[in-house]
Amino acid sequence: MSKLVIVGTVAFDAIETPFGKTDKILGGAATYIGLAASQFNIEGAIVSVVGGDFPNEYISMLQERGLDVSGIEIVEDGKTFFWSGRYNNDMNTRDTLVTELNVLADFNPKVPEEYKDAQVIMLGNLHPSVQQSVIDQMVIKPKLIILDTMNFWMNNALEELLQVIAKIDVITINDEEARQLTGEYSLVVAAKKIMTMGPKYVVIKKGEHGALLFCDDEVFYAPALPLEVVFDPTGAGDTFAGGLSGYLTKTEDYSYDSLKKAVIYGASLASFCVEKFGTERMLKLTKTEIHQRLQQFKNLTQFDIELT
Amino acid sequence: MSKLVIVGTVAFDAIETPFGKTDKILGGAATYIGLAASQFNIEGAIVSVVGGDFPNEYISMLQERGLDVSGIEIVEDGKTFFWSGRYNNDMNTRDTLVTELNVLADFNPKVPEEYKDAQVIMLGNLHPSVQQSVIDQMVIKPKLIILDTMNFWMNNALEELLQVIAKIDVITINDEEARQLTGEYSLVVAAKKIMTMGPKYVVIKKGEHGALLFCDDEVFYAPALPLEVVFDPTGAGDTFAGGLSGYLTKTEDYSYDSLKKAVIYGASLASFCVEKFGTERMLKLTKTEIHQRLQQFKNLTQFDIELT
Repeated sequence: MSKLVIVGTVAFDAIETPFGKTDKILGGAATYIGLAASQFNIEGAIVSVVGGDFPNEYISMLQERGLDVSGIEIVEDGKTFFWSGRYNNDMNTRDTLVTELNVLADFNPKVPEEYKDAQVIMLGNLHPSVQQSVIDQMVIKPKLIILDTMNFWMNNALEELLQVIAKIDVITINDEEARQLTGEYSLVVAAKKIMTMGPKYVVIKKGEHGALLFCDDEVFYAPALPLEVVFDPTGAGDTFAGGLSGYLTKTEDYSYDSLKKAVIYGASLASFCVEKFGTERMLKLTKTEIHQRLQQFKNLTQFDIELT
Repeated sequence: MSKLVIVGTVAFDAIETPFGKTDKILGGAATYIGLAASQFNIEGAIVSVVGGDFPNEYISMLQERGLDVSGIEIVEDGKTFFWSGRYNNDMNTRDTLVTELNVLADFNPKVPEEYKDAQVIMLGNLHPSVQQSVIDQMVIKPKLIILDTMNFWMNNALEELLQVIAKIDVITINDEEARQLTGEYSLVVAAKKIMTMGPKYVVIKKGEHGALLFCDDEVFYAPALPLEVVFDPTGAGDTFAGGLSGYLTKTEDYSYDSLKKAVIYGASLASFCVEKFGTERMLKLTKTEIHQRLQQFKNLTQFDIELT
């Protein structure tokens, strides 16, 4: 069976949306990625760091979903990374209220021995030097390295970020970040420029407008499912990445055709994530629900046209 | 053969984009709708008004494309409607520089006798009382009435607009306008509210993010083709409406399944329109190019997924 290494934050989030607010709840990129990827019954390991304040029950919960948690370092006298944010009424923009790096400030990722030959690596949004360190620890060249990043690293660690981008196969990035990284407004032109930086596949996330997958001169559009209520967008991008990486790990097929299905799986899982606060919806998700939603995605986009 | 009545402006436009600017060129909603609809070799008539300054060659050009122009009134001592606008760098927003209503101020539409039994009516963006007048002139109840409108009429003639909306089958409207009309942020909820106002089908246009088709509890997503260059967005929405109405007139099939294909045709034709200034691209369009683009739309969205 194919293995997946997931690196990213495991964290506390406090979220405000027009629908309500939460106290400190379970969050973090690796948490969302892991919960989504675990739907594929693959061998997945989370590489992260938490403080002594992190509840054991959260770790157990990840473990019960088949995720290897031996790569989650626990710094007993440290505090877990904490993020707090407030979404505006449009749910597309948010203000960060608090960012406490805590144990993340000195995070030195350690890939478990039995995962150093993993086929797929999912590098969640983190300092590029941390992402680089994970790649360096692999003893066999991975078949596929997927990277997620954000504008913060473009502003503060661009050179290191470009060095990592040169070594990966798939990048997931949002539309504004793709424009910032390339200086190109057209996403088609931006994607082509990013391909020259390293990645074979470029996935541009457009939030409620879905995601675009680029490869050579090809482009594929994974829509976002139009929803009556977007309750909390937190974790949607990471859930998308989790669906993407989980599907590719499961199928061991890294072709363009497989990537298309992977982004559809990612979009489907992300459409659940936003229905409740935090990880709540992902924790109760059933296979039947996922299959029904994939069918909804088919209904949403499939057509057969006769030429007139 | 099925007939289509198109009502809307036939106008002069002067356009500025980051790529250049034009003098007064041929424009107007009915022009773009007519050029798109004429691709289907249907019987189509344009109902509009122009001034004595309007070149005969433009009228002849529409006629050569098989469009009945007897409903285009020429007010010899009047001036043609003129609009001038400048697009911002993002090409999604624009400033109106000049609006001269001219002969449009007293426009009293007259449907040609032989089109008063048309099966399909395409009501382009105009004062709702003008749209209403066209409906009133029909001697046989049309099979399908499609209406396009904009926020200007919501602000200035809401009551009349609602009266027309109650009588139509399909509305095309952009996302912000759908929100304004209903007071609902979610497009799914907005579409459902609009359906209670009259239309069976609601098409919400999202510009570069494509369009959504709603019917009962169903939703279908026609993507916009990601383009390297959007040269001039003028007329894209009207071209979309022209493709939609032309396809439905041609097929005489007004089912949800047919509407899906119609919005794909509309999106395909609109993707050509933005490639050049004004009507330039639409005037040179070939059947082969349209068929190739429809295939691109299929490649963009079609997938076959196995459930894991």
